[in-house]
Amino acid sequence: MNQDQSDRLDVVLVSPRNPLNIGAAARAMANFGFAHLTVASPYAPHWREARSAVGAPDLLQNARETESLAEALTHCTLIAGTGTLTYRKPEQRVVALPALAPLVQRELARGGRAALVFGPEKHGLTREDLSYCHLLVEIPTDVRQPSMNLGQAVAVCLYELSSRIGPTEAPGNAGHASVPLPTEATERAPALRTPHALSATLDRLAELIEQTMVAAGYSPAAMQTANRHDLRLLLRRLPLAEPDTRRLLGLFRRILWRLRQF
Amino acid sequence: MNQDQSDRLDVVLVSPRNPLNIGAAARAMANFGFAHLTVASPYAPHWREARSAVGAPDLLQNARETESLAEALTHCTLIAGTGTLTYRKPEQRVVALPALAPLVQRELARGGRAALVFGPEKHGLTREDLSYCHLLVEIPTDVRQPSMNLGQAVAVCLYELSSRIGPTEAPGNAGHASVPLPTEATERAPALRTPHALSATLDRLAELIEQTMVAAGYSPAAMQTANRHDLRLLLRRLPLAEPDTRRLLGLFRRILWRLRQF
Repeated sequence: MNQDQSDRLDVVLVSPRNPLNIGAAARAMANFGFAHLTVASPYAPHWREARSAVGAPDLLQNARETESLAEALTHCTLIAGTGTLTYRKPEQRVVALPALAPLVQRELARGGRAALVFGPEKHGLTREDLSYCHLLVEIPTDVRQPSMNLGQAVAVCLYELSSRIGPTEAPGNAGHASVPLPTEATERAPALRTPHALSATLDRLAELIEQTMVAAGYSPAAMQTANRHDLRLLLRRLPLAEPDTRRLLGLFRRILWRLRQF
Repeated sequence: MNQDQSDRLDVVLVSPRNPLNIGAAARAMANFGFAHLTVASPYAPHWREARSAVGAPDLLQNARETESLAEALTHCTLIAGTGTLTYRKPEQRVVALPALAPLVQRELARGGRAALVFGPEKHGLTREDLSYCHLLVEIPTDVRQPSMNLGQAVAVCLYELSSRIGPTEAPGNAGHASVPLPTEATERAPALRTPHALSATLDRLAELIEQTMVAAGYSPAAMQTANRHDLRLLLRRLPLAEPDTRRLLGLFRRILWRLRQF
């Protein structure tokens, strides 16, 4: 992975608790050449303590802080949540960690921006958190002790990305030729030489479609939370590029406007 | 890696200081399915504290404790020391971590026993420690922050071994066919379908050769420490199997006996 590419990978920690783990995550980032850390809805005192620790690397001082996970991801185009499958039935594509590098590399080679998301120590990412992710990355661990320490999980994932991704040619055309990729139907779609849509755009689109559902009386109010969740998952499963989403946004804005005229 | 194989891999920590790091190393072992931990010349209070920590995994309770690194390794046939090349000029073969798995797998498939050795937090393995190792494994880290946290280094190495080594066939003949290996002259030697010699045997041979050197007046007393070090390195660079070492032991015993008659 070249410098330009590792500069377009964000590590996102969701509500980390233990300052030592936050420090360990930052250290692993420095070890493997990644600089962009975001902490989403942190516990203020723990986060202050981690940040002010003696010897905390620069990237911890410069870390971004956001109120929500959605806000942390707005500018990303490929989002991978980490976790184990032991306690969960995944709702998105699952990728074993050793297979992650080519997917990330392709998105970075197209000029996209990737995020690797880690949940809180106690329970990991929630179903809601994962609905913002295109992929669930599974670290292959022993069934008798599947759950990893946060700092160690970050180290293992970043080691995998930095050691598996070789130097690539210029964005736009080279990534495809040099990286062997798993065959899947979506990869043949014409939009795929450009990066995926921004997370923020998908959120805007989901919101608009939801308003349209409500305006059209599509489903009872009690179903709205479930619909919102499913919509978020659906939009991340589709290989939508920015031009696609602009078209869809225009369409739904128009529909909504018409619906509200009745 | 199958159960039988991971049961023949030892993780050896040399004089670890921080009980949290010892615990983290043990947890990573449990995550990746390894059970055999040895702690060589530990600091007694830190080691006691780590061992008695709440929630310490069984493998920490059952860890072996030895006075020296040599003693920790006696029954091993392939020993890989970990470290960075940033501050050192290696005296043994260097293998980047992503290339380690096939080497370990081959030795395990032959029925050998491997050890992965980690140095103390502050300075890593010494030159003396490394003289007991066949290989120096380098984790590819960023030059600006090359030195990893102990628990994270253990996690990354064990992830690499457990995720790269596929299931193998029975020992003795299958490993060779299924694993693509780096070509090197030594691999063509006839002895190599059997495991390497035990570390203890190499130590015994080195001691005998040293006595022979002294008895033969080979070099001044001031050189003995340097000679011992070089001998240890040499014996680990050669692809010696147990039958080879038995022959050599017999030869040097005979020579020594003759020399002492004069």
